[in-house]
Amino acid sequence: MGQDNYVRIFDTTLRDGEQSPGATLTSGEKLEIAHALARLGVDIIEAGFPAASPDDLEAVRQIAVEVGNRSPLPGREPPVICGLARATKGDIDKAWQAVQYAARPRIHTFLATSPIHMKYKLRMDPEAVVEQVREMVAYARSYCDDVEFSPEDAGRSHPEFLYLVLGEAIKAGATTLNIPDTVGYTMTDEFRTLTAGIKAHTPGIENVVLSVHCHDDLGLATANTLAGVQAGARQVEVTINGIGERAGNTSLEEVVMGLHTRQPFFALETGIDTTEIMRVSRMVSHYTGMAVQPNKAIVGANAFAHEAGIHQDGMLKHESTYEIMRPETVGWQQSALVLGKHSGRHALRVRLAELGYEVEPGEMDRIFARFKEVADKKKTISDADLQALMVDERYQPREIYRLDGLQVACGTMGMPTATVRLIGPDGSEHVTAAVGTGPVDATYKAIDAIVQMPATLLEFAVRSVTKGIDAIGEVSVRLEANNGNLQTRTSPQSGREQARTFGGYGADTDIIVASAHAYLAALNKMLVASGRYDSEPWTVVSEQLTVTDH
Amino acid sequence: MGQDNYVRIFDTTLRDGEQSPGATLTSGEKLEIAHALARLGVDIIEAGFPAASPDDLEAVRQIAVEVGNRSPLPGREPPVICGLARATKGDIDKAWQAVQYAARPRIHTFLATSPIHMKYKLRMDPEAVVEQVREMVAYARSYCDDVEFSPEDAGRSHPEFLYLVLGEAIKAGATTLNIPDTVGYTMTDEFRTLTAGIKAHTPGIENVVLSVHCHDDLGLATANTLAGVQAGARQVEVTINGIGERAGNTSLEEVVMGLHTRQPFFALETGIDTTEIMRVSRMVSHYTGMAVQPNKAIVGANAFAHEAGIHQDGMLKHESTYEIMRPETVGWQQSALVLGKHSGRHALRVRLAELGYEVEPGEMDRIFARFKEVADKKKTISDADLQALMVDERYQPREIYRLDGLQVACGTMGMPTATVRLIGPDGSEHVTAAVGTGPVDATYKAIDAIVQMPATLLEFAVRSVTKGIDAIGEVSVRLEANNGNLQTRTSPQSGREQARTFGGYGADTDIIVASAHAYLAALNKMLVASGRYDSEPWTVVSEQLTVTDH
Repeated sequence: MGQDNYVRIFDTTLRDGEQSPGATLTSGEKLEIAHALARLGVDIIEAGFPAASPDDLEAVRQIAVEVGNRSPLPGREPPVICGLARATKGDIDKAWQAVQYAARPRIHTFLATSPIHMKYKLRMDPEAVVEQVREMVAYARSYCDDVEFSPEDAGRSHPEFLYLVLGEAIKAGATTLNIPDTVGYTMTDEFRTLTAGIKAHTPGIENVVLSVHCHDDLGLATANTLAGVQAGARQVEVTINGIGERAGNTSLEEVVMGLHTRQPFFALETGIDTTEIMRVSRMVSHYTGMAVQPNKAIVGANAFAHEAGIHQDGMLKHESTYEIMRPETVGWQQSALVLGKHSGRHALRVRLAELGYEVEPGEMDRIFARFKEVADKKKTISDADLQALMVDERYQPREIYRLDGLQVACGTMGMPTATVRLIGPDGSEHVTAAVGTGPVDATYKAIDAIVQMPATLLEFAVRSVTKGIDAIGEVSVRLEANNGNLQTRTSPQSGREQARTFGGYGADTDIIVASAHAYLAALNKMLVASGRYDSEPWTVVSEQLTVTDH
Repeated sequence: MGQDNYVRIFDTTLRDGEQSPGATLTSGEKLEIAHALARLGVDIIEAGFPAASPDDLEAVRQIAVEVGNRSPLPGREPPVICGLARATKGDIDKAWQAVQYAARPRIHTFLATSPIHMKYKLRMDPEAVVEQVREMVAYARSYCDDVEFSPEDAGRSHPEFLYLVLGEAIKAGATTLNIPDTVGYTMTDEFRTLTAGIKAHTPGIENVVLSVHCHDDLGLATANTLAGVQAGARQVEVTINGIGERAGNTSLEEVVMGLHTRQPFFALETGIDTTEIMRVSRMVSHYTGMAVQPNKAIVGANAFAHEAGIHQDGMLKHESTYEIMRPETVGWQQSALVLGKHSGRHALRVRLAELGYEVEPGEMDRIFARFKEVADKKKTISDADLQALMVDERYQPREIYRLDGLQVACGTMGMPTATVRLIGPDGSEHVTAAVGTGPVDATYKAIDAIVQMPATLLEFAVRSVTKGIDAIGEVSVRLEANNGNLQTRTSPQSGREQARTFGGYGADTDIIVASAHAYLAALNKMLVASGRYDSEPWTVVSEQLTVTDH
């Protein structure tokens, strides 16, 4: 049970967060985010839902191997690596296949307990639900000493029934009990009362960790989570930037900074290194393509925006009048302009290391070349510029088609035209021109004519990385395949097969070039998923996958 | 004080929301938003801080005249039009100059009551603060029967001192007392206790309306506001999309939908027509350039995103398993594809009216021409496309320079070039070419060479309005003038002069053309503010402005 004043941070960015429409991540991106979460000091990483698809299972397994066996911070154990499973043997088998390689594996299984879910979704009566929970928690426990159970839609379940189900889960071996407000329905008072009731009335609760998991449909996820903590929860389930289905999950950064800023009020601690928050926030926003609005608490662009004025006026004595935390605490940098066209490889390597990027020797040539290319166009290269470049560099684990040349003419004269040269998977060169409604449309039509992977553009967004007209533009796109042959994934909640969507990201001072990169990145992911080409390198290890005997 | 179960919605989008960095609005935009807020059913519109600048005063006055004298909905009075004033005679005079034209004017004055603000900001002792509150509330009341008083930073003030100050404000004539958590510091429990304490211990509180005003620095604004309501507040101060300084204010849509979705829990009512929420949300996002993140509660693009899958599967019986409110309730449309290239003027006019746009006969020619232009390129025109066009049409109340032609060449060959033709204020034609780091940079450099209004680009963002590669792209930019001669505005909280920033918006199927429109829109606003050209048409009435005798 650990110290009673320690709140465990259970990050589900890679599971519940990644279920957001359009937030689909490649395995490579998931792995990089998992490393960043470990450096942030997260206690438990819910790395995915292995039963969703073979890709999902493999991604969780890879995180278990690589992140689950490495101490991320001095004096810290590797994070617990957790896999989600519905309360079935098949799902639990798959979760264990994936997480068993971690030093500290966890299986998280769940079954709905609200009348509406039992009746319409499960079509089970309450007795059968209790029996299945008992059996499946015991089954999970037969694999693994660390088992979490969640009564889905607890927020709309009868408290007395929850006490019963949770008590049985404890008897069957659950070590963490999680209370999800699955649909974001409860008011803060209600959720506090629910959690306190479970803490007071569940037999055996004193021997397990109580956890809360909230959704933000009515804007109350952070408040409800903190209320749960006040009522005795010592694990909180959160995501970076509050991403997740619909209005998303509880934001890690809000809960952590609430506990941190009001430490005397709560008298609780977390293991989070708050100065890593901004870096992980930006990484997750880049990789998922889920923008953070400027007025987002803690990590929004304006969250500390009064700063400038205060310093300009030299009114340092006023700081605490309108400021309850320092921007440095969460890793905001004053976008220091550190590098320029005369900066050398060493300076670049040092700065990248400070930003948390370990660059392999083989990688440095390409990164330095891109850096010089930008530095030739742009006077100063900020940290944000470097981060954008690194994300662009590392976003494409496997390039099937590569952009080799692009030429665009557009404007008000009416016939936007793009000529594209791509290098194909066999090294051959393809050149095509197309006319479109605008330069991006023309570019994408030309790429389509070569790649022949029918897709619908769901979202397209550009933003400038830094101030100034000559800034790098970041483009993120999200595509859906137009043919049904692509892999689908199973939703853990509804059990339905869902079409996968594919995100792409590009960064360049020319936003049309960045748009081409982003589109190709998404198409390349889709091509890999279609099975037309070999999958990403790491999947060669998948032959090792067998259910471990026990 | 009215029905005890009615919660008044006090919208401060145009005052506290507009203080967000970069959210600066023109008077024309403010007026259009005020009309939309009235249709939404807001009870009180805080239209601005008239002492900030002559422009701010005039914008409030215009809203008082035009929105404050018109019944927006059957059976409804015109909304109360409120102006903010520091607790000084000068500010109160200006607030009254602006709001007096409304059928139901209100003056809202404030003074800080927390030890830290009294000591460092006001440099006043508590006795002097009480005396100034007494005098200035009485002074405001001498103009106006409806006076609101806020003890700034109440969240960090001593409760006993608040009871005293607020009691004096009531004796001096205040009719609404507002409790601001100015820095977003309080936990939900604390704010509930604070509000309940004020309700219980302030002499005379039973004769006034108690109000709450929260900020979202720790992600708790909505929860704290609802806790305040549970503790007896019957006015809530909110903004559309939760915009506002730093992490913003409480979101109108979250509080209203909390009260609405959980009506049996609260047993309270508002006057809001919830089906107008999405329309106002989009308008405010367009005009302010403040994007709404996809995982924003109620109004984010994903808030109801599970919908599609459910309908596709025909699993209607499942709706309530994961859905606590219907998208129609807040005015989400299934982006019905209603118009195409064969649609006529009548169909367009009808659809625009359904979307809430009243089109003047003179305006229709230009709008129809733009509609046909888009329809020629794009098969179907959705509601979102139409809204983007309307916003683009109406965004520029005064064009100093107008884009007459643009020709751009860019790509990977390295020398992005733009040729721009502008029509100047005297009707003369200017053509310039420029090279840049990308097509947008080249376009902006060419425009700069003609317009000669030195500015720094603070933000640049593009997003596609609808699905599909041929979609309309929306561009929003934010500029800061590089010369100090432009008008500044006074911050109500710090009293400091702040540089104004200028937003611009453009929409086109060619994102480079849209970028040019957006940049010119922002530059035109800046040119007007510089005083180099006549201001917008309506300011000719400013000669009527005199302090009314009393």
